[in-house]
Amino acid sequence: MSGSTFGELFRVTNFGESHGPAIGCVIDGCPPGLALTEVDIQGDLDRRRPGTSRHVTQRNEPDAVEILSGVYEGRTTGTPICLLIRNTDQRSKDYGNILDTFRPGHADYTYWRKYGLRDPRGGGRSSARLTAPMVAAGAVAKKWLLEKHGTTFLGWMSALGEVEIPFESAEHIPHNPFFAPNAALVPTLEAHMDALRKAGDSCGARIEVRASGMPVGLGAPLFDKLDADIAYAMMGINAVKGVEIGSGFGTVQERGSQHGDELTPEGFASNHAGGVLGGISTGQDLVVRIAIKPTSSIRLPKPSIDRQGQPTVVETHGRHDPCVGIRATPIAEAMLALVVMDHALRHRAQNGDVQLAVPPIAAARPGTP
Amino acid sequence: MSGSTFGELFRVTNFGESHGPAIGCVIDGCPPGLALTEVDIQGDLDRRRPGTSRHVTQRNEPDAVEILSGVYEGRTTGTPICLLIRNTDQRSKDYGNILDTFRPGHADYTYWRKYGLRDPRGGGRSSARLTAPMVAAGAVAKKWLLEKHGTTFLGWMSALGEVEIPFESAEHIPHNPFFAPNAALVPTLEAHMDALRKAGDSCGARIEVRASGMPVGLGAPLFDKLDADIAYAMMGINAVKGVEIGSGFGTVQERGSQHGDELTPEGFASNHAGGVLGGISTGQDLVVRIAIKPTSSIRLPKPSIDRQGQPTVVETHGRHDPCVGIRATPIAEAMLALVVMDHALRHRAQNGDVQLAVPPIAAARPGTP
Amino acid sequence: MSGSTFGELFRVTNFGESHGPAIGCVIDGCPPGLALTEVDIQGDLDRRRPGTSRHVTQRNEPDAVEILSGVYEGRTTGTPICLLIRNTDQRSKDYGNILDTFRPGHADYTYWRKYGLRDPRGGGRSSARLTAPMVAAGAVAKKWLLEKHGTTFLGWMSALGEVEIPFESAEHIPHNPFFAPNAALVPTLEAHMDALRKAGDSCGARIEVRASGMPVGLGAPLFDKLDADIAYAMMGINAVKGVEIGSGFGTVQERGSQHGDELTPEGFASNHAGGVLGGISTGQDLVVRIAIKPTSSIRLPKPSIDRQGQPTVVETHGRHDPCVGIRATPIAEAMLALVVMDHALRHRAQNGDVQLAVPPIAAARPGTP
Amino acid sequence: MSGSTFGELFRVTNFGESHGPAIGCVIDGCPPGLALTEVDIQGDLDRRRPGTSRHVTQRNEPDAVEILSGVYEGRTTGTPICLLIRNTDQRSKDYGNILDTFRPGHADYTYWRKYGLRDPRGGGRSSARLTAPMVAAGAVAKKWLLEKHGTTFLGWMSALGEVEIPFESAEHIPHNPFFAPNAALVPTLEAHMDALRKAGDSCGARIEVRASGMPVGLGAPLFDKLDADIAYAMMGINAVKGVEIGSGFGTVQERGSQHGDELTPEGFASNHAGGVLGGISTGQDLVVRIAIKPTSSIRLPKPSIDRQGQPTVVETHGRHDPCVGIRATPIAEAMLALVVMDHALRHRAQNGDVQLAVPPIAAARPGTP
Repeated sequence: MSGSTFGELFRVTNFGESHGPAIGCVIDGCPPGLALTEVDIQGDLDRRRPGTSRHVTQRNEPDAVEILSGVYEGRTTGTPICLLIRNTDQRSKDYGNILDTFRPGHADYTYWRKYGLRDPRGGGRSSARLTAPMVAAGAVAKKWLLEKHGTTFLGWMSALGEVEIPFESAEHIPHNPFFAPNAALVPTLEAHMDALRKAGDSCGARIEVRASGMPVGLGAPLFDKLDADIAYAMMGINAVKGVEIGSGFGTVQERGSQHGDELTPEGFASNHAGGVLGGISTGQDLVVRIAIKPTSSIRLPKPSIDRQGQPTVVETHGRHDPCVGIRATPIAEAMLALVVMDHALRHRAQNGDVQLAVPPIAAARPGTP
Repeated sequence: MSGSTFGELFRVTNFGESHGPAIGCVIDGCPPGLALTEVDIQGDLDRRRPGTSRHVTQRNEPDAVEILSGVYEGRTTGTPICLLIRNTDQRSKDYGNILDTFRPGHADYTYWRKYGLRDPRGGGRSSARLTAPMVAAGAVAKKWLLEKHGTTFLGWMSALGEVEIPFESAEHIPHNPFFAPNAALVPTLEAHMDALRKAGDSCGARIEVRASGMPVGLGAPLFDKLDADIAYAMMGINAVKGVEIGSGFGTVQERGSQHGDELTPEGFASNHAGGVLGGISTGQDLVVRIAIKPTSSIRLPKPSIDRQGQPTVVETHGRHDPCVGIRATPIAEAMLALVVMDHALRHRAQNGDVQLAVPPIAAARPGTP
Repeated sequence: MSGSTFGELFRVTNFGESHGPAIGCVIDGCPPGLALTEVDIQGDLDRRRPGTSRHVTQRNEPDAVEILSGVYEGRTTGTPICLLIRNTDQRSKDYGNILDTFRPGHADYTYWRKYGLRDPRGGGRSSARLTAPMVAAGAVAKKWLLEKHGTTFLGWMSALGEVEIPFESAEHIPHNPFFAPNAALVPTLEAHMDALRKAGDSCGARIEVRASGMPVGLGAPLFDKLDADIAYAMMGINAVKGVEIGSGFGTVQERGSQHGDELTPEGFASNHAGGVLGGISTGQDLVVRIAIKPTSSIRLPKPSIDRQGQPTVVETHGRHDPCVGIRATPIAEAMLALVVMDHALRHRAQNGDVQLAVPPIAAARPGTP
Repeated sequence: MSGSTFGELFRVTNFGESHGPAIGCVIDGCPPGLALTEVDIQGDLDRRRPGTSRHVTQRNEPDAVEILSGVYEGRTTGTPICLLIRNTDQRSKDYGNILDTFRPGHADYTYWRKYGLRDPRGGGRSSARLTAPMVAAGAVAKKWLLEKHGTTFLGWMSALGEVEIPFESAEHIPHNPFFAPNAALVPTLEAHMDALRKAGDSCGARIEVRASGMPVGLGAPLFDKLDADIAYAMMGINAVKGVEIGSGFGTVQERGSQHGDELTPEGFASNHAGGVLGGISTGQDLVVRIAIKPTSSIRLPKPSIDRQGQPTVVETHGRHDPCVGIRATPIAEAMLALVVMDHALRHRAQNGDVQLAVPPIAAARPGTP
């Protein structure tokens, strides 16, 4: 039971290793009739793929997706959609020395202890490369949610190491390699990364991701709260160490009189809740932030042990992202889309398609909490 | 599909509402042969129950648990264990006025939009009272994990509103109503709460919870990472808005050279990872922190709307915790125990009972990351 | 993982043992707004309960159901519905001698080997008494399906041992203790049972159960075929050894030219398929038959072994049904209703509530295949 | 939620359509360390594949399997195993006329009603071709079960239409195209098929499949009984209309004194139970029989309707099996192996690897019940 399926009703089963012949996923439960071709998916894959700037791994893969099933004459049939991405640039020699040692901060030690053996090539199953099929599946979810509910997803980087990135405009995000919503800060970010690379070190990042145009009523009261499933999805992304919704950790120091978002005939007056109350979506923007740890694979030598328990020193060469957070934005968007998609289907299983007659409450107001 | 079952192999199905006749849960998948009586469960329930100090709700319930099934002559039989807790102090009149209005920060609005109707008595299903069956189930998991693996769980409050609570000693925790690991600060906390109550307001809190004596190898590579399931479990607790593991959000500003915990022949030299690498337990302490929002039910009046979308003002009387975080410590322990329990069973499903022959690496070192 | 939850979206978790304090179930995922009281459930429970004629066990229990949660002011709220049935007539002494020996045909041996211990009182978890909560849950499903889709369920006995019971009229079914659709045969059935009881032996039975007014399109192409889930549900009933749909085993000797049901503008011209094609409902009646083995608990002595592997002889006294098939009819109806209910929710998760515009094909024609 | 995943812990997710680019499956939860190459899988695929005799479809495909993930240096790693089979002989033109009409006995009508559209090429997802990935996954399960428990699987044809095939010897099975355990009857079976083909018609079949060397204690008391999961697995195979275990429908006419298998110090004295008591394996052979309906695609013209509900006549040309039961034997073996595999993992999740100390009861005795 290796935990490779995401979702209850829009089920995505992920397979593959970094340096095997292929990676991919099978989406089970997609509604029929959705117009879908590889073009709909490739866009988000291109946003995530390596080799697009000098600040990410120089592994060079087109990440071209092939739809193997579930689509007939350009429309989903309601049966499983298999998405395949061939691995084309596996230089296994880069990783030869890691078979016998455990890189600090890596999954080497835990995989070996869990399974008794591991695929060391490029990190095998623990590689961030396995997020590519999730981005592909997320693109399918995004398309259905946009067409059905008008829901959209947007992520950006809000901190790169100690550099805070104030939100200026969503228009800046696609025009720099950091997904930064602030054009003026891009030279600072470039300089920060160049210095890190020169030092052979790596840094963390914070990503913010939002869903707008949310249907009201998604989520469940107890365990499968919408925010609980978001936390699960986000913490499942490689290198994520923290997740917060709405006010998040800031809520510790808030007062109830301040935190509880007022309802007005025109909608909620604020969004400290981050779009979820009692585990169920309010219709406001979902507001999610995640903390991403610094890349574990660094050039600087670090003491460790080998499989015999003897001391050794590990230096990681090869091609690595000096900040894995840089490519995390489209991944976080995809995971959020998968959660919302799954809950949209779950909601209509129990409650049907018909929306309740509701008073004219404007669903959402933009802006941070 | 209302999301009321937690876990894959140690499955806990929760039922009940705050003011219905009873709450409880069914545990399916418990290993047979575990010695179990109500006494094993009542202790943690008593730590969580209301009415134990002036700082929590004055609702007065014994929360006495009854084992209805799955135990024969004091041992679990491997079949479902039903735990029942009768509700005995429901004063429905306290909540009469909330049927038609939506309390800011509450689930009133979202339940009504999702289901078209709701049980308003005491918050119905959204009440924190529904954490009692989880604490009961967690006590069963704790007992098995202690006997089988020697694993223990410990939680405490690390911040009450703006008051930070430095860790002094675990010995202080059971001796104050806040689960504070610092005796000297208790008067400050008491004063803080008294002022809040006088003001008719509420505040947030931060809880830390740890598992020690962890088996190595629990978790799964991709989605069902141990930390992802922890995030899901914690964010599923009422009022939680943030979860972090190990360095958590602090990791954003760490360097890779600093964050990656060194392995030595005597064990890991630090625990920035919080006990999880690549989604799998390292054997070190699991280190988890959660942010809890201020109670939404406050005496101060707040503007809101009614079911017709018309403006109104909400004042909440009745019995409420001015800081829901105060009773959250045993809940967080229980949820962490349920996650570890489930993964312990999942691990042996795939890998069997036999431990790998391993070099003598000390598994854990105490202390914060 | 003791397999006590039935269904994916209308999830029924069953708990209890024959001679414990109570049995019951938790229904998770019930659509909100369904009018529901104990009265809606008690009717089917009364059809199933023991002690109603001299041909079934003389255990005398009212099987009174109590709704503990999930219903507010007579309507389901969408949250878990806990149904509790207290055990009131446990005469444990009847079963004292079976703790150390294995009754032939019983679960005694397998439970002991699986779990290392077992609750021997009345068969513990293996007792047919555990079908009562399924009948209760089935009553909820039946009510929703009737109101939403007009679907109805009807079962009857079609063979008692070697006595075939030709279908005369559904009107006879409620007027005899056998659920026989043939009044003229009732004296024969009475005589058959009296002879068996005198001989201290037991016999098998065949039950037929149908759903009429079926929605078209329920089921899934591959594994979760509607008929596959029906087979799973039926074979899960105590003592069932065979399941067939439509022509069933008779299909082995049919020709394709004969078996394939013709479609006409007025509907299907026959129903060899039993209401399912390719795993998906056609809208015709679901036609299901099950074979039930003779009760294992008989008065006649049988050789067996004890827990030390030594030969012994087992005679079972106490209160037993000489044909467990007699009370199986309402159980089979309930299980069929649960399958249809679950697939109704699954269908609308993926396909929404809206029915396709279809040509005027009459959905069903009555009559056996 | 299109029901394309089989199993709880050894989870097989199937994808593909008859005439798409590829079919395949992803196995999640396979224990690590199992030696596995394509050769281990290809053998069973070759037993199932088309074109091997004149009595099955002349579609000519090598059904060559490719392992895309989950295996490193010839051993399973514990991560998902993706098995891919490219489709190489899709003659879509053969099926052009079926887009607008509904073939009697086929899934054409139900798919169209469920999804609003369908892939008509070769039956799309409803094609028996989709059993190939199940056979592949079953081969992996068989290998693990053989190595771990010594369990083996054997199926055969016991009736072809009205021709009963008495069991002579397992040695005959691999030496004729029918999987018949009786060499003397093969000419009769050949003649039967030749006559059918000449007539443009098709016939049904009955298959028996057994597991020997079964571990004791697999299965669960209530819903996930081993036999219930077997029924689900078997009824999920294309064209299956009936399933029975042990005495099956014959049990209706048995007496309790006859049916209950005696236990002796040397083992059970008979096997009417078919290897399952109370839903849990006894250690005896699992004995399963299934009824397979005649192929729906026949050359003989049949009246039907088109998508506008107008009368039409359907004649199916193209390449079809005149008896789909002929190739069903390896499929039934594979499905039985998948059920046993899943329950083997589920058992050790709850009960661990250690076998109970048991008295020397010989587990199984061969022979029909």
